[in-house]
Amino acid sequence: MIRIDLISAVPGLLVSPIEHSIVKRARTAGLLEVHIHDLRDFTTDKHRKIDDYPYGGASGMVLSTQPIFDCIRSLMAQREYDDVIFMAPDGIPFNQKEANRMSLLKNIIILCGHYKGVDQRVRDNLITREISMGDFVLSGGEIPALAVVDAVARLIPGVLGDAESALEDSFQDELLGPPVYTRPPDYNGMKVPEVLTSGNHAKIKEWEFQQSIERTKARRPDLFKKYLNEH
Amino acid sequence: MIRIDLISAVPGLLVSPIEHSIVKRARTAGLLEVHIHDLRDFTTDKHRKIDDYPYGGASGMVLSTQPIFDCIRSLMAQREYDDVIFMAPDGIPFNQKEANRMSLLKNIIILCGHYKGVDQRVRDNLITREISMGDFVLSGGEIPALAVVDAVARLIPGVLGDAESALEDSFQDELLGPPVYTRPPDYNGMKVPEVLTSGNHAKIKEWEFQQSIERTKARRPDLFKKYLNEH
Repeated sequence: MIRIDLISAVPGLLVSPIEHSIVKRARTAGLLEVHIHDLRDFTTDKHRKIDDYPYGGASGMVLSTQPIFDCIRSLMAQREYDDVIFMAPDGIPFNQKEANRMSLLKNIIILCGHYKGVDQRVRDNLITREISMGDFVLSGGEIPALAVVDAVARLIPGVLGDAESALEDSFQDELLGPPVYTRPPDYNGMKVPEVLTSGNHAKIKEWEFQQSIERTKARRPDLFKKYLNEH
Repeated sequence: MIRIDLISAVPGLLVSPIEHSIVKRARTAGLLEVHIHDLRDFTTDKHRKIDDYPYGGASGMVLSTQPIFDCIRSLMAQREYDDVIFMAPDGIPFNQKEANRMSLLKNIIILCGHYKGVDQRVRDNLITREISMGDFVLSGGEIPALAVVDAVARLIPGVLGDAESALEDSFQDELLGPPVYTRPPDYNGMKVPEVLTSGNHAKIKEWEFQQSIERTKARRPDLFKKYLNEH
């Protein structure tokens, strides 16, 4: 059972993704709890402000210290958290290894940045881990946080119907997956590779491995080099 | 004005993120249209099935050819699309350059994979571009697609309140952004760096640049190396 507390300036954005698909399944099965916290519920400002202009004259708005400190501290007073994560484009890149690591934790806070960012004092004093979804800019950390929740949810034992499924995916063995096909064998003249319908399992495994190798070599030479070094 | 058509097996998942924040703003301003298509509306199967077992005996389910071909072809019959994108962990990594490129297009289809993936014949015959959000596995392409929509929406001229804001972000100049601070200058003894309240704009700019350099060097040596090569 993992508990994830999501803290956001736009909590409504988070609703539908946690009510569908794998995250819904994990929650329904009692294997995952996701709690959404609205930063505005924690501000002491009489106009319910949660942000302010950045020092130094840059444009955009910065999430203020007080609502975030109060929100995170009220959570920490209730239970012990393994990680207080901030989704930030300048964090460490999220990958499957990090998802695996997180799937072994119990209580996780994820703070979603928004607007220009959050006051650095929050990052310096409350955050234990900063995670980036990639080298691109989004309007907030909400969608990256949802990606983390999804990636972690499917790794919790019992969530995926077939225990094999998660282990066979791309990145669990650091190669891209092979192409997949399903019925019909001929769709308007487009055919499934013969080997896949041959019934020869050894040949199929070999074909899939070759395809994984070729695809990784062609699309992700960086991953392929790493794979070669480790095997 | 950009039109994005999202095709999904879990359309309900996509709802709340496109109704909030920057994407909502872009849509309300008439600068972005987002249309969600339910794959199940396009299946000719009497049980409304849209997936089937993969050939070769692997676990998981694969999205079938027919509903996807029919959905994408019906859209292509109505207008010309610049790109038919498939969100896939083995695609090319999404980055700010790709977001910039997409923000100049007019009509975009984004197909979200789900379960084990989609029949390779879809990828070979309909898809013009495969984009990955990073080296991790999600239960579907919906959240990555939402990230693309957000990243693109904020680049459409007129969507961000302040024209400067998007250009100052991390990655637009290939360095991570500097730390940001807002009021109060002293929060429970945690202080804002003095330079930022000095009023000396040249010094502030220099401090921010130094911080960007140091942060990039420490956290993302790969980006820093690239930056040095290009400057």
